[in-house]
Amino acid sequence: MATNENKPIFGRHLRPDFLLESKYVPLNHGSFGTYPRSIHKKFREFQDKVEEHPDRFNRIEVNPLLRKNREQIAEIINCPDPSDVAFVHNASMGMATVLRSFPFEKGDKVIHFNSTYVNVNATLRYLKDIGQIELVTVDIKYPLSDGEVLDIIRATIQQHNQEGKIRMAVLDAIIALPGVLFPYEAASRLVQEHGILSLIDAAHAAGQIPIDVSSFDPDFLVSNLHKWFYTPRGSCILYAPKRNQRFLHPLALEHNYTSEGNGFEQEFWNYGAHDHCTFLCVGPAIEYRKSLGGEDAIREYCHNLAVEGGNLVAERLGTQVMDNQDHTLIGSMVNVEIPLYPKTLRDDEVTTQFINKIIYEQNCMTPAFKHNGKWWVRLSAQIYNDITDFEYGAKAIEKVCQDLSI
Amino acid sequence: MATNENKPIFGRHLRPDFLLESKYVPLNHGSFGTYPRSIHKKFREFQDKVEEHPDRFNRIEVNPLLRKNREQIAEIINCPDPSDVAFVHNASMGMATVLRSFPFEKGDKVIHFNSTYVNVNATLRYLKDIGQIELVTVDIKYPLSDGEVLDIIRATIQQHNQEGKIRMAVLDAIIALPGVLFPYEAASRLVQEHGILSLIDAAHAAGQIPIDVSSFDPDFLVSNLHKWFYTPRGSCILYAPKRNQRFLHPLALEHNYTSEGNGFEQEFWNYGAHDHCTFLCVGPAIEYRKSLGGEDAIREYCHNLAVEGGNLVAERLGTQVMDNQDHTLIGSMVNVEIPLYPKTLRDDEVTTQFINKIIYEQNCMTPAFKHNGKWWVRLSAQIYNDITDFEYGAKAIEKVCQDLSI
Repeated sequence: MATNENKPIFGRHLRPDFLLESKYVPLNHGSFGTYPRSIHKKFREFQDKVEEHPDRFNRIEVNPLLRKNREQIAEIINCPDPSDVAFVHNASMGMATVLRSFPFEKGDKVIHFNSTYVNVNATLRYLKDIGQIELVTVDIKYPLSDGEVLDIIRATIQQHNQEGKIRMAVLDAIIALPGVLFPYEAASRLVQEHGILSLIDAAHAAGQIPIDVSSFDPDFLVSNLHKWFYTPRGSCILYAPKRNQRFLHPLALEHNYTSEGNGFEQEFWNYGAHDHCTFLCVGPAIEYRKSLGGEDAIREYCHNLAVEGGNLVAERLGTQVMDNQDHTLIGSMVNVEIPLYPKTLRDDEVTTQFINKIIYEQNCMTPAFKHNGKWWVRLSAQIYNDITDFEYGAKAIEKVCQDLSI
Repeated sequence: MATNENKPIFGRHLRPDFLLESKYVPLNHGSFGTYPRSIHKKFREFQDKVEEHPDRFNRIEVNPLLRKNREQIAEIINCPDPSDVAFVHNASMGMATVLRSFPFEKGDKVIHFNSTYVNVNATLRYLKDIGQIELVTVDIKYPLSDGEVLDIIRATIQQHNQEGKIRMAVLDAIIALPGVLFPYEAASRLVQEHGILSLIDAAHAAGQIPIDVSSFDPDFLVSNLHKWFYTPRGSCILYAPKRNQRFLHPLALEHNYTSEGNGFEQEFWNYGAHDHCTFLCVGPAIEYRKSLGGEDAIREYCHNLAVEGGNLVAERLGTQVMDNQDHTLIGSMVNVEIPLYPKTLRDDEVTTQFINKIIYEQNCMTPAFKHNGKWWVRLSAQIYNDITDFEYGAKAIEKVCQDLSI
């Protein structure tokens, strides 16, 4: 545990930094995220500033603020040119922006996975249904090593590039369910070597793992900031290198669109009447994160706690952590098998009832999901958690499993 | 002016109900809207409730609240089935949702106007550029009577339906610039009689004029709530009758999408990680509006003030109000010609400099625009304005016109 003059920096004592209910034991930061009071305060100051003079703020004052916050997040993902980064509202919108803008040609194939995020798979299915793309669906069952994942992708390319053109591959940086790290940099390079564009869904990445777009040069990358980076909900980045920017337009186009092409930065600049203030909280989030020791310190604490907490829960439940031989699956989320053996309930009923019970009866939260024939939970480790939360969580999970094994 | 025991209900004394700067004279509610402190308070209570337990709120608690607020706004637009109404973030997104979902066939034509909102025209140009639709652009120059507008539409249909299929017509309820009422109900019926789908951009309508979807049965209708209805920015409705719902999908599709069709209500329900709290302020907005006497009282005050204020400004400036013989153009916005005769500045420079000067030098706001060869301002009348604001505005506009007539 990171310490400073023997005083721990991270842990349950940080919980009051957030607005979370005091008796709630949160082990699911991954789904919706949440953000500290200090950022909440800045967010509201901006919101108040807007209403003092909506025209002045939205037409004029917001622009240098958006620019500055964009520069700050560009630096975080090692993007030397901030004009290659646009703000969008969430990863589903960012992914849909790329998928619905890209000028696919009849017969173009897109690689995706059974584990691709449900909303992204919905957009992909829709594009298939309207005849815009063909899908190459890769079924993966965890645990897998990074090498195995890459082998599967390689085999998929070999099989399907012969029959026609694979145009794009949708790759997670961190899969949502199961919550495992995906070898996205290597996978991006691999598909690019075969002339396939890489679209990275890094929804869970910013704030959880390093993103370095300069080093691996993806074709498109989307990352929520409101999940792990501590900005308010409704803030996300869409990165595209210059070479691919001509393919992109906002889902709802703006007056800045011209038939001749007005450029990515112009088209995505300050778009739509909505709350821009979420985007202005990048700076305050960075400030808060630095006050705790910065990205590496936060990442190290959360990762170590996820490993330790996952092991503890698995031990208490007599099950296992989802892991591979190289231990490359765990970021700040860890998946633990649970002793859940429903006899009468359908899988979707189990999922819903698990959530209802763990929230309302146990005052805790972690989502249960079925993968590869077994039931698991995905546990998130955050700076406001410590090992006692996982001890509490183990008991809560055990009780809910007993209740639902009927 | 509406009165209650001789005490005026509306006017400048309501300004402190809003967060507007005390010395600012706002005559441009139309661009961004703003909302009262009482709704601001409720909005924040919801936002705080979310962060107390993001999973519980976003997965469970938000649902009955969304349902209730949707029922309330459905009643306002006289839509008997609330499942025909979906929340979207703003009118540009709502319009893009319809235009980018609709399964246009090769050669389908869409009627739109030079006066269609810039963002909507951007989406239309984009769809034309990618070969999805052909555009029939109708050029209209105000002032026009409602009859003249309908004649122009009729003539357009006669000319262009011969050459091919007109599939849809994009009709404003209230045009943004100039800010005039459009005979949208009659125009919708007219195009429908010719087998053309009506898509109504009612961005400025909810809270400014009555919307009665049961009476005129449009094919699609979009209305912001954050402009004239007093909800926070980022709240809008998309209405579609059952017969047209199968054509619609959210811009970023969600897990609820199925290839077989899961239905409008399911697909647009609670979509995406973002701030749903804007949508939960429909109820508080209705409550505030009722406390002032309700829709008719608000509408009557604002309309009368727009007429009176427009006349006053035109008289002071020695110009004219944009009006027709039947006086059907003015809702809560009024357009007044201004004595602006730029000699060296380009039109776009005039527009920008006008805004900068009237905001920073005059502490007022109204946008200037060129229409039909003349310069005009669009003045908004709100419940927090009275005639003294228009007196102030007249002087501010005169000074800026002098400064820019160079």
